[in-house]
Amino acid sequence: MQSVFSAPVTTPAAARAETVDAPPFVSLLTDFGSRDPSAGICRGVILRIAPHIRLVDISHDVEKYSIVDGAQTLWCALPYLPIGVHMAVVDPGVGTPRLPIVVEARRGDLLVGPDNGLLLPAAERLGGAVRAHVLEREEFQLPAVSASFHGRDIFAPAAAHLALGVPPQAFGRPLAIEALVRLELPVAEIRPGELRTAIVYVDTFGNLKLAGDASDLRSALGALDPGVRLRLTVGERGRPIELSWVETFGAVEPGGLLCYEDSYGRLCVAVNRGDAAHRLRLTKGSPVSLRRA
Amino acid sequence: MQSVFSAPVTTPAAARAETVDAPPFVSLLTDFGSRDPSAGICRGVILRIAPHIRLVDISHDVEKYSIVDGAQTLWCALPYLPIGVHMAVVDPGVGTPRLPIVVEARRGDLLVGPDNGLLLPAAERLGGAVRAHVLEREEFQLPAVSASFHGRDIFAPAAAHLALGVPPQAFGRPLAIEALVRLELPVAEIRPGELRTAIVYVDTFGNLKLAGDASDLRSALGALDPGVRLRLTVGERGRPIELSWVETFGAVEPGGLLCYEDSYGRLCVAVNRGDAAHRLRLTKGSPVSLRRA
Amino acid sequence: MQSVFSAPVTTPAAARAETVDAPPFVSLLTDFGSRDPSAGICRGVILRIAPHIRLVDISHDVEKYSIVDGAQTLWCALPYLPIGVHMAVVDPGVGTPRLPIVVEARRGDLLVGPDNGLLLPAAERLGGAVRAHVLEREEFQLPAVSASFHGRDIFAPAAAHLALGVPPQAFGRPLAIEALVRLELPVAEIRPGELRTAIVYVDTFGNLKLAGDASDLRSALGALDPGVRLRLTVGERGRPIELSWVETFGAVEPGGLLCYEDSYGRLCVAVNRGDAAHRLRLTKGSPVSLRRA
Repeated sequence: MQSVFSAPVTTPAAARAETVDAPPFVSLLTDFGSRDPSAGICRGVILRIAPHIRLVDISHDVEKYSIVDGAQTLWCALPYLPIGVHMAVVDPGVGTPRLPIVVEARRGDLLVGPDNGLLLPAAERLGGAVRAHVLEREEFQLPAVSASFHGRDIFAPAAAHLALGVPPQAFGRPLAIEALVRLELPVAEIRPGELRTAIVYVDTFGNLKLAGDASDLRSALGALDPGVRLRLTVGERGRPIELSWVETFGAVEPGGLLCYEDSYGRLCVAVNRGDAAHRLRLTKGSPVSLRRA
Repeated sequence: MQSVFSAPVTTPAAARAETVDAPPFVSLLTDFGSRDPSAGICRGVILRIAPHIRLVDISHDVEKYSIVDGAQTLWCALPYLPIGVHMAVVDPGVGTPRLPIVVEARRGDLLVGPDNGLLLPAAERLGGAVRAHVLEREEFQLPAVSASFHGRDIFAPAAAHLALGVPPQAFGRPLAIEALVRLELPVAEIRPGELRTAIVYVDTFGNLKLAGDASDLRSALGALDPGVRLRLTVGERGRPIELSWVETFGAVEPGGLLCYEDSYGRLCVAVNRGDAAHRLRLTKGSPVSLRRA
Repeated sequence: MQSVFSAPVTTPAAARAETVDAPPFVSLLTDFGSRDPSAGICRGVILRIAPHIRLVDISHDVEKYSIVDGAQTLWCALPYLPIGVHMAVVDPGVGTPRLPIVVEARRGDLLVGPDNGLLLPAAERLGGAVRAHVLEREEFQLPAVSASFHGRDIFAPAAAHLALGVPPQAFGRPLAIEALVRLELPVAEIRPGELRTAIVYVDTFGNLKLAGDASDLRSALGALDPGVRLRLTVGERGRPIELSWVETFGAVEPGGLLCYEDSYGRLCVAVNRGDAAHRLRLTKGSPVSLRRA
């Protein structure tokens, strides 16, 4: 994933709004699902403590326990959100010694969640993590902290107090950035005439997101004119699939396969008005190779 | 769908609230789903530009690519929402020459989305479309406009600037209302003793919404007393199904079939405390006929 | 379910926020689903009448028609939400003579919904229901009240007017608390060496929530050290399943079965990083028995 500091992605009016009087902003991302009370409870805990903030959901439907999916979703979303507090909970290790933390990113955001790798890719994209603290001070937790719902008892109260202006160092001891848990994410491997990559995320349209970006593909295959045919191979012995390298869906017929640079810069395999994951029977984690056809 | 201007559907207190000091209102409707970051990103882009507005989701779970479902959902919802800006994105043609537009409705609302038919039925229901402009001025777009995510790069920034008071004409050239793309929606056909219609939407309860309203059914079958038995036939040769014409669910036993006028005035076939689509194995698009039993 | 008045579950900063200047708070819980326009319409109706309130969703994905699931979700959530108005609609009897009501709880909350048992368990947990009124005054309803969508036409306008400060008695005649409909919820039966209980809710992780709490289990089995082995039997003749009584997920290996006290105090059977409902093929309603292994 890119570690370059994204330029501000907004408009002149937004720049003005941010300097004047925007209320504190808090976003939420979890794998709690939308049926159970958990997401609503986190909203409620935050608004009881900080009733005047702007509170926005990114998603509560991250694949259960998938830290990698949660990390990628945050990485996609945060550059487009107001500078603020971002609480993220995909936390299969709740109740174990993994630490609850706040990470400050260079853009000015404060990322709250478990120290399991979930927060760092997004922090990198916001200019890099500049400091981290443990969320251990009881004054900023609910009176009774359960062993299984730290979203409610630790993370939501922390997010609310941070939005009120309590500084990160008030929550507990500092942690070295280098000591934080990091994910091992698949990376694209550039070979002569071949990009070896993998499906890292399947979105709700069935589009297949690959590790690596368009510049990686160009490094492997040379300059790519729109319309050039590519050959996709799954695994070592998969049957090759041909598809077009194009700018967007409409460049192929409905039902046609395409490979394009998605709106975050990632390589993506899709079907125009269709579901590529279903059509090609591919899922997250599959290794794939791209060559010229 | 009805083109009459809906009377304001609200209460005296609401009428007062609207004249005094309500903050600008923005609603969102998309087929982005709730798992991916897309919906949250649109929320974030809007709030960065216009941090003080009221932002409300109608739905992000419109059936993928179904412009017709999106149009019907907007048609149902907008009369009940505050006058404001309504951003709707069901956009299988993103990246093609289809235009991004804003449509002003007579009630005072501004509808933002692709020119593919999605917006017009709701605009009709809000008194009719009075003017439309292309969203082409770069000042009101994100600095980099992608080929595949105009929700983020064009529509969300436009909605936010409209909510801030930028007038539609500032966004680009005008379009004639007659030149906008219109959907061809199924209509009910009134015959002597028979209403020929079709299932136009299946809701999450499995209720089957039909083209046409109760007055159409009366035009075909004459006055209908509550409890009168009707015969529903699917397609040309379907096995007839008997059901009761009643006011609401509770008028039949649990598990019983009914036909009623839904809360938007549409004809609807349902099962009391059950799922009619599953029970009758019917889906959207099926032609159906209603007669007296 | 516990009828004791929950202590305030918040932090010093929240206590301050609530006494100073928090805007009126309204929460929503329904079984309307997220695809249809219904939830968005309720949000819109409320904000047209009361544009300055805080509006938060608990869930719109309660199992269709399951009053018991809705009641349990409210029971879990409300203690953690700001004191305010809570609108809940799981209403299979819409359009029948069941009454629309507002119930005031001792904590100061106002619960709005149908008189079908949905509201009372949460009201008990907020200190008990202190008074109830019928929502019958037309001034606080939409001008046309449909037979099938009281969420839009009666409950949402009532919630908004209550948030504006209209007192419950202004909506209609009082009802005796004892006359309100009550749910018959499964309870745990304490026997010597055995707790007879039942699965009352399956959450989105597949965790199985049982009737009864940890003190019930101790009453049946005596003191329970962490790690003690329990035997779970489903129904009269189910094959016994062994599992560990622990504090939380991380105390067993990934894939291991556990029984623990969930974050609301309920007994819960789960699989660490897995789905217990799927693994054990159990669903809501199954009677289960817990003994020492």
